[in-house]
Amino acid sequence: MNETRIVTLAVSMGDPAGIGPEVIAGSWPSALVPENFRRVVIGRVAVMNRAIELLELPLVATPVATVGEAQSCEADRVPVLEIDFADADAVAPGINSSAGGHAAFLAVELATQLALSRQVDAIVTAPLSKKALHQAGHTQWPGHTEMLADLCGVPRTAMMLYLPPRCAAVRSQCGLGVIHTTLHTSMRLAIDSLTRESILETARLATAFAADMLAAAGEKRAPRIGVAALNPHAGEEGMFGDEEIRIIAPAVEAGKKDGLPLTGPLPCDTLMHRAADGEFDCIVAMYHDQGHIALKLLGLHQAVNVTLGLPIVRTSVAHGTAYDIAWKGKARSGSMAEALLLAGQLANLTRDHQPSHGRMPV
Amino acid sequence: MNETRIVTLAVSMGDPAGIGPEVIAGSWPSALVPENFRRVVIGRVAVMNRAIELLELPLVATPVATVGEAQSCEADRVPVLEIDFADADAVAPGINSSAGGHAAFLAVELATQLALSRQVDAIVTAPLSKKALHQAGHTQWPGHTEMLADLCGVPRTAMMLYLPPRCAAVRSQCGLGVIHTTLHTSMRLAIDSLTRESILETARLATAFAADMLAAAGEKRAPRIGVAALNPHAGEEGMFGDEEIRIIAPAVEAGKKDGLPLTGPLPCDTLMHRAADGEFDCIVAMYHDQGHIALKLLGLHQAVNVTLGLPIVRTSVAHGTAYDIAWKGKARSGSMAEALLLAGQLANLTRDHQPSHGRMPV
Repeated sequence: MNETRIVTLAVSMGDPAGIGPEVIAGSWPSALVPENFRRVVIGRVAVMNRAIELLELPLVATPVATVGEAQSCEADRVPVLEIDFADADAVAPGINSSAGGHAAFLAVELATQLALSRQVDAIVTAPLSKKALHQAGHTQWPGHTEMLADLCGVPRTAMMLYLPPRCAAVRSQCGLGVIHTTLHTSMRLAIDSLTRESILETARLATAFAADMLAAAGEKRAPRIGVAALNPHAGEEGMFGDEEIRIIAPAVEAGKKDGLPLTGPLPCDTLMHRAADGEFDCIVAMYHDQGHIALKLLGLHQAVNVTLGLPIVRTSVAHGTAYDIAWKGKARSGSMAEALLLAGQLANLTRDHQPSHGRMPV
Repeated sequence: MNETRIVTLAVSMGDPAGIGPEVIAGSWPSALVPENFRRVVIGRVAVMNRAIELLELPLVATPVATVGEAQSCEADRVPVLEIDFADADAVAPGINSSAGGHAAFLAVELATQLALSRQVDAIVTAPLSKKALHQAGHTQWPGHTEMLADLCGVPRTAMMLYLPPRCAAVRSQCGLGVIHTTLHTSMRLAIDSLTRESILETARLATAFAADMLAAAGEKRAPRIGVAALNPHAGEEGMFGDEEIRIIAPAVEAGKKDGLPLTGPLPCDTLMHRAADGEFDCIVAMYHDQGHIALKLLGLHQAVNVTLGLPIVRTSVAHGTAYDIAWKGKARSGSMAEALLLAGQLANLTRDHQPSHGRMPV
């Protein structure tokens, strides 16, 4: 990886009512973010300056007209490419509003366009509120990830929660990722929608991501991917459900035949413990909570959300808008700093060799 | 609690092929187990002496004919009330066998009888293998917990995983318990079998247990019980499943009306994190892995399994037979030591006041 090449990240501001502006401001001076990373906030200057003042940071948010202008900003400037929606400046803290939801949507939309047109190398998103998004009429997506898939025109993505190797609870040199075969859906529909193909596709994305992170860490070894069972005790040989026998084990076998480094299906409780002990680089989870319970316990404030399968690099904080603590100066910006670093790392890897971390061709 | 009163624990040996005998022997000299606790192993003298020799402990297993005889044993003796099944002595390590399964069954059966007839104050069980149990013809139970319910003649119990306050990852002064509304069943059947009544009953057991543990810790405050959602984001207001709206929220409301200190339904990923931060004493989980993923990550080697709803006090190690490391001297006995301590604490509480920790009248 070229450590000095400029990497440009578009940071979407999220819902102005939430902690997005604060964590973007708070992470600006983070030691985690390398010198060669350039950031441009997609949002509103007035909102960012309020966050900067709240945190008493020696920074000033400044409007820029282009990404190029942002790249050459002084170090104490926070360049903001403004969304054309002044109502965002008046959004009240800590509550859902149509204006907040629409502002968040516009920021993600613009950031995505910049990445698709290769004006930025990656996007990093601050949290939005699904409820506010729906209040603003953007009701077609159950979450941020699905919105991005749609904006990028891809039918299928997978959401990964990732803990960096700096996280005290993680032993693998390339961090620990959990990728979700199903995500924002009921448990009943999650079970119904598990197929050999969806698990195999998720396992492929997991393998590519882990290979990339191993390369970034300078590790020569092959990735190790653990595949979770759906049922307790991995179904106990069919006594507690047959999805392992009918669907998951055949998917694992098919993946192994294709050369994927898969182990499983394993009972999820022991799998997560073994992964935290360093036995796996990445876990293929069957449903949302399986991955989220584990990774939030292991490192809530360092976890990063990565969308795999998009034609662009996208990372995000792993937390929500946190209305209860928003605009009180209490939000921790660790997850945003990790999301910035990972986005740049993935963007760099993608430029250095074939885009293997699950990026699809545009 | 009376610290000096004698408390007698029957310790069932588990499957001789597994790590049961080793962890019983290894925990014998544990500093965690108070002076006033008396233990009697229910199993085989020959097997226990093999484990003692393997670990090079200054102990000798000795046959006793009655619990009374065990209570007055010398400190360097491990009293064993023998099951009448000499085949157990020849069980090969690390593999399932009909003899191993039957030995484990007989030990649990005898221990339970001793507790039901009040010859011992509590039982503590070492792990058995479901497969060996089935090989021995004991096919009617999906697990240890269900077998105990049947032996005690109760229709419904709940399985709790408990982490003691000594566990570094736990903040509550009374430890952290997760009690499971459904347990050894497929995810599909678990979802189908959730009812307001089953959740409410589980929440009652959780409240009683937490009240007991607070009393044991000398805490005066009321327990705080968090109830987990089934679906991701607690169903996101019905978008990701309606079990929260139809079943779990009404159960929580009904419980609150009855004076239970319930909060929920909360998304399980954040709930587990908040519980680990000390916000709750006990969690009501909807299914097996929800609780097991969290508690095994927080403290695999200190976790204790407690069966609530039985007419006797029963605790168990939280791990299995671990055939891969059995009879190699590698097994860690921390969970067994914690199980012994908790069994004695619960037995003492039960004698000091009304049995509130979920014990039903015999």
